[in-house]
Amino acid sequence: MNNYLKLFFLAVLITSCAKNSKELPVDASNDQHPNLILTTKSVSEIKSKLGKVPLFDATLEKAKQAVDAALEKEIAVPIPKDMAGGYTHTQHKINYATMHKAGILFQLTGDQKYAIYIRDMLLEYAKMFPTLPRHPQMRSYARGKIFWQCLNDSNWLVYTSQAYDCIYSWLPKEQSDYLNKTLFRPYADFLSVETPQYFNRVHNHSTWGNVAVGMIGLVMNDDELVNRALYGLKKEDVDLKAKDNDGGFIFDKDGKAGFLANLDSPFSPDGFYTEGPYYQRYAMYPFLIFAEALQNKKPDLKIFEYKEGVLMKAVDALLNLTDADGEFFPLNDGQKGMSYYTASLVSAVDIAYYYGNQDPALLSVAKKQNKVQLDITGLRVAEALSTNKEKPFIKQSMELSDGSQGDEGGIGILRHQKKDETLALVFKYSAQGLSHGHYDKLSFSLYENGEEVLQDYGLSRFVNVEQKNGGGYLKENKTFAKQTIAHNTIVQDQTSHFKYDFATGSKNHSDKYLFDVSNPDFQIVSAKEINAYPGTELHRTMIMVKDANDAKPYIIDVNRVQSNKAHTFDLPHYYFGQIIATNFAYQTPKQLLPLGKKYGYQHLWNEGMGIANVESIQFTWLHHQKFYTITAATQKEDEILFARIGANDPEFNLRKDPTLIIRKQAAKKAVFASVIASHGTYNPVTEKADNAYTPIESVKVLVDTKAYTAIEVVTSEKNSLLILSNEDNASDTMHRVTINNKDYRFQGAYYYKSTK
Amino acid sequence: MNNYLKLFFLAVLITSCAKNSKELPVDASNDQHPNLILTTKSVSEIKSKLGKVPLFDATLEKAKQAVDAALEKEIAVPIPKDMAGGYTHTQHKINYATMHKAGILFQLTGDQKYAIYIRDMLLEYAKMFPTLPRHPQMRSYARGKIFWQCLNDSNWLVYTSQAYDCIYSWLPKEQSDYLNKTLFRPYADFLSVETPQYFNRVHNHSTWGNVAVGMIGLVMNDDELVNRALYGLKKEDVDLKAKDNDGGFIFDKDGKAGFLANLDSPFSPDGFYTEGPYYQRYAMYPFLIFAEALQNKKPDLKIFEYKEGVLMKAVDALLNLTDADGEFFPLNDGQKGMSYYTASLVSAVDIAYYYGNQDPALLSVAKKQNKVQLDITGLRVAEALSTNKEKPFIKQSMELSDGSQGDEGGIGILRHQKKDETLALVFKYSAQGLSHGHYDKLSFSLYENGEEVLQDYGLSRFVNVEQKNGGGYLKENKTFAKQTIAHNTIVQDQTSHFKYDFATGSKNHSDKYLFDVSNPDFQIVSAKEINAYPGTELHRTMIMVKDANDAKPYIIDVNRVQSNKAHTFDLPHYYFGQIIATNFAYQTPKQLLPLGKKYGYQHLWNEGMGIANVESIQFTWLHHQKFYTITAATQKEDEILFARIGANDPEFNLRKDPTLIIRKQAAKKAVFASVIASHGTYNPVTEKADNAYTPIESVKVLVDTKAYTAIEVVTSEKNSLLILSNEDNASDTMHRVTINNKDYRFQGAYYYKSTK
Repeated sequence: MNNYLKLFFLAVLITSCAKNSKELPVDASNDQHPNLILTTKSVSEIKSKLGKVPLFDATLEKAKQAVDAALEKEIAVPIPKDMAGGYTHTQHKINYATMHKAGILFQLTGDQKYAIYIRDMLLEYAKMFPTLPRHPQMRSYARGKIFWQCLNDSNWLVYTSQAYDCIYSWLPKEQSDYLNKTLFRPYADFLSVETPQYFNRVHNHSTWGNVAVGMIGLVMNDDELVNRALYGLKKEDVDLKAKDNDGGFIFDKDGKAGFLANLDSPFSPDGFYTEGPYYQRYAMYPFLIFAEALQNKKPDLKIFEYKEGVLMKAVDALLNLTDADGEFFPLNDGQKGMSYYTASLVSAVDIAYYYGNQDPALLSVAKKQNKVQLDITGLRVAEALSTNKEKPFIKQSMELSDGSQGDEGGIGILRHQKKDETLALVFKYSAQGLSHGHYDKLSFSLYENGEEVLQDYGLSRFVNVEQKNGGGYLKENKTFAKQTIAHNTIVQDQTSHFKYDFATGSKNHSDKYLFDVSNPDFQIVSAKEINAYPGTELHRTMIMVKDANDAKPYIIDVNRVQSNKAHTFDLPHYYFGQIIATNFAYQTPKQLLPLGKKYGYQHLWNEGMGIANVESIQFTWLHHQKFYTITAATQKEDEILFARIGANDPEFNLRKDPTLIIRKQAAKKAVFASVIASHGTYNPVTEKADNAYTPIESVKVLVDTKAYTAIEVVTSEKNSLLILSNEDNASDTMHRVTINNKDYRFQGAYYYKSTK
Repeated sequence: MNNYLKLFFLAVLITSCAKNSKELPVDASNDQHPNLILTTKSVSEIKSKLGKVPLFDATLEKAKQAVDAALEKEIAVPIPKDMAGGYTHTQHKINYATMHKAGILFQLTGDQKYAIYIRDMLLEYAKMFPTLPRHPQMRSYARGKIFWQCLNDSNWLVYTSQAYDCIYSWLPKEQSDYLNKTLFRPYADFLSVETPQYFNRVHNHSTWGNVAVGMIGLVMNDDELVNRALYGLKKEDVDLKAKDNDGGFIFDKDGKAGFLANLDSPFSPDGFYTEGPYYQRYAMYPFLIFAEALQNKKPDLKIFEYKEGVLMKAVDALLNLTDADGEFFPLNDGQKGMSYYTASLVSAVDIAYYYGNQDPALLSVAKKQNKVQLDITGLRVAEALSTNKEKPFIKQSMELSDGSQGDEGGIGILRHQKKDETLALVFKYSAQGLSHGHYDKLSFSLYENGEEVLQDYGLSRFVNVEQKNGGGYLKENKTFAKQTIAHNTIVQDQTSHFKYDFATGSKNHSDKYLFDVSNPDFQIVSAKEINAYPGTELHRTMIMVKDANDAKPYIIDVNRVQSNKAHTFDLPHYYFGQIIATNFAYQTPKQLLPLGKKYGYQHLWNEGMGIANVESIQFTWLHHQKFYTITAATQKEDEILFARIGANDPEFNLRKDPTLIIRKQAAKKAVFASVIASHGTYNPVTEKADNAYTPIESVKVLVDTKAYTAIEVVTSEKNSLLILSNEDNASDTMHRVTINNKDYRFQGAYYYKSTK
């Protein structure tokens, strides 16, 4: 058999070498490949414009340089062995990336060396595949063949399908038949029927799996595979409670599966993806590239109109889930630094531009990305940029609902922008977010000009850094990063939300109470969480107030807790940098002990403790040359804890970031009310400290009843009164509240007024 | 008397209002003011060129906007009360800065409103001065009148003298007589004869004092003051052992004082200022502005030729003591972030250009600074820039000797530059550095592209941040930042160099052993320290080796210690970021304890401990998306300590930076030999880790005798052998060393060869 195969390859080689002429005649008929992403028609148009569209030409030239360099090396298709970051893993990644580009180059330049490269490499894979066992690394719940997990195998197939499509019509039929039969159809079966626990989920992993099977199905005109991709496997007799190695359920509770189910369920009608932007970014490529392929080959499906155009909305949502530098907010598991400069967003922006309304704001993002997808979508973007059609992409304050019906809470983003000065507050009151979700109901993070002011820790992982657990999740992701105490939100009795139980967390979501950004100088978002701690209601309201023309807005944070029993409540603030001043006394210990034993507390060193002893504490810090102050209403007995991440971290996996925790002891109800202000700057060159003191003098809780909470914010210039209706969020209700013998009447769920 | 004064002011006001015409006739005679920095001649030239020299015009326009804004506010000359950062301190700083600019504007625009502003403000000061006691804040060894320390009062007088000079000829003589008698002469006496412990030192403080007295002396044509400034007060009957509040001696051991003594003694012939670049930067302004004034009024003094042109050399030295971003290396007390963008360096660069050789490399620095001094020097720079005369300022590897004769050790800087890729190693083997000196013989720091790789902690102070000890030095500056353990150098028996005794430290300096940068691929610096620990010789050699064309250079660090008794030796490495991997096992404690009780060890938390147990340990970390590894030759029993700054820091004054300490126990001699490599990058957008593993496989000590030390560095590609002659640094000596039965012969103090 082996000898027989060798002869076959030899024959193939001879055949193909014979037609080694530089220019390839392209048949424009419909069955003619390529017809997946590139089409015979679009190739013809693109070729006619080569050399005339600078950004497209530049991107093509870079691809050409990369592939030409790869072509100088021998083809390497090593027997799979390594984890992420290791040699075989990296080599197979390089292989599919190179084949993908080579396919495009073959079509756009007509140079057959690219086709030959793909063919030869595919034959190597076909030689290896039939006898390949599952990958020897045992870490995944769904081990792949070429990689340690099926996810990476699916990446391989999504990109390779496109390369294969580009040479399909060029290959002799017996060769494509051979590859279909020996490599591609078995591979698609392997990723689906042979690995149902991977293929049949609602999860970004499965989206990749669905799309891999669907793309190769489209190339091979194999409708069985395409349908399998779209609708999933038929329900099997499987354990619906099985979990993957991230701790997520293997099967959807409703038993749905396939590409369309993955569009239905994790996406909200606003285009928010419940796993969070980091995984949305990862999933955007298969979602959109398969959509483009379906649009080309199955236009009747009208995939871009599916669920009222959710794919287009998803791109817009994702671009808005970034800070001023384009970096994604690390909601749930998210590696910091990932941004809309990533390749999948280049693709997403170009596809959204082409198949959407040619929104010129998308062009300004494409311009920053400085590259395009090498197909008709990228060509159109590059053409538009060459005639300066772009308009600024201005991120607005917005709410993104969560849940497939948009009724499972959401994300509220409040923004301020004045020239280069930006603030962004991200408030999370969404659902669990599948297996990548964090236990952080009503948590928030704050950004200034693309820098974190109060951070969300993100994930605990060094993606693709082999030395750190093969690039995979670190155990501290579960023991710390996902725990409630790792976030800027209330922790009751030092226990995480839902007692860190994934099944319970997955059944529940927070509820929006208010979202009103109609007045840019007073933007408010408010939400409730009644399930995280049974018997306890958490209600948090966050407001971005711009009180003075010449000052930045500050944040009012009102965190109400009421329970049927007395509890301890902790509210952490993960700041950065150095402590400049406090208005309360504290002690620092001679030795450091962890703050607790579990739920993430075991990872916090207790660096100091104070008792508030005043009505309003102040805490000022300096980070990246800016002064920030939290002024928080306190009761005299409230504890202030200084803590730092890093305890019980035997492999130094965690960042040693600090936090300030306000702790209220043994209370049935409590209000954490504070103002967070970015008020000053330090310049190390002029050595000038400007506005090193916060303008906020105090924050007090004047009233806290079941129905109303009233907060007073005092500055040197004025007193501001905030009244919140706690139980009636209707905008037309008339309220009357008496505070210090004075009556206040207002319509709607809140009142805010400043007096000099 | 008060009423009499009021009448006098009224009369003055009426008089001056009468001549409120917009254009001022300028007399070009020599006695005519201005003649200090601006001169009647230069004013005339500058005015003729206004509107034609863009950078000069832009700088002038900014000054005009600042002053015009200040003119709209009422003059405020408050009774002094506050520390640095407080209201009265800040206001008086604003006052002198505004007067300084207003004087220039008066001269260059002729608009009398500027002159009137200065006059009115000076009259306020004159009203207040006669009855003003020393400042109520008691912290300084030399309390000022307007400020808490005479230093700031001198700043006031240096700038105000220039403003005064600009309006001197415009003022009625009786008014200048009044100001001379009531304000300026008494102020000059106050800063000198009344405060000899401040005025008569060799110290940057005194330079400011000398120049303040000298500048106002030149304005008033008061030769007694000018001579006092140049030569100091006559020796008084004072306590020569008195110390200031930085712990520095009040009086020079040789009893020298005055401006020239401050040029003689702290400057080496290479222009290195013994206190370090941070204070050199601070002193450059008075040094150079007074030099310019002397050149204008006392050209016979030939001040720019003094000590073979040391002032010009000082500017060059200072520009070279910066990282790739222009930030000064924080040798001794230095606040990080201070850079050549500071105003005193704008002045220094312009003055050096004008009075030096019109070096076009200085222009490229001026271009980055993007402003010029508003006098003839700045005009010339701006003119040259307007015709694109600048050339790049390329920082070279260089040695800067320390000591007034250049024989007290020095600073060795090894650099690598290849396009935007730069490395800079700063090796310190200088003298104590006066009261701002740190106890860090043979310490080093390493920079890559303007970022710190292995840091010098710098000072512990938040300059001008009032909340932090009034902006002054924090006590942790003495208890930590100045201590040896805060630096990347050897600590014996957990005790600082010279037992942290300033008198002993001040008597000693390290000695250069080698400095050879003639081969850019093998740059070597070596120095010895025999006094820091009596009975112990420290000998450190640092080499920047570029072994491969496509790789960055790495650092070989050979630290030899030999003593007449057994000691413990610690070598810290202050890295940043996160630990990625080690090749040795370690334990992390359940609770953190300080590493020691004194000499700075009390400020380090012990975060972990391992035993080397291998011949060569490896430690890899990731910082700012770069991978670094230290590979260090070890003996099996060597301890590796993981520590972090922050223990016993009750006000959170310290940065919580980490360090890795290699500890050799109870040894009479030891060699710490290591290779420090910047070898890889991590990209969070592509999530690719490139070269995450160091190419260095091991570092071994093959030989260590009194005469020779031989080190082997093994990479996957080659073995490199380094032999150092330990006692003979002559370049012509022939050496013969036998290693593993093989003879090596070489000429000069070192041998280096790689074999594949």
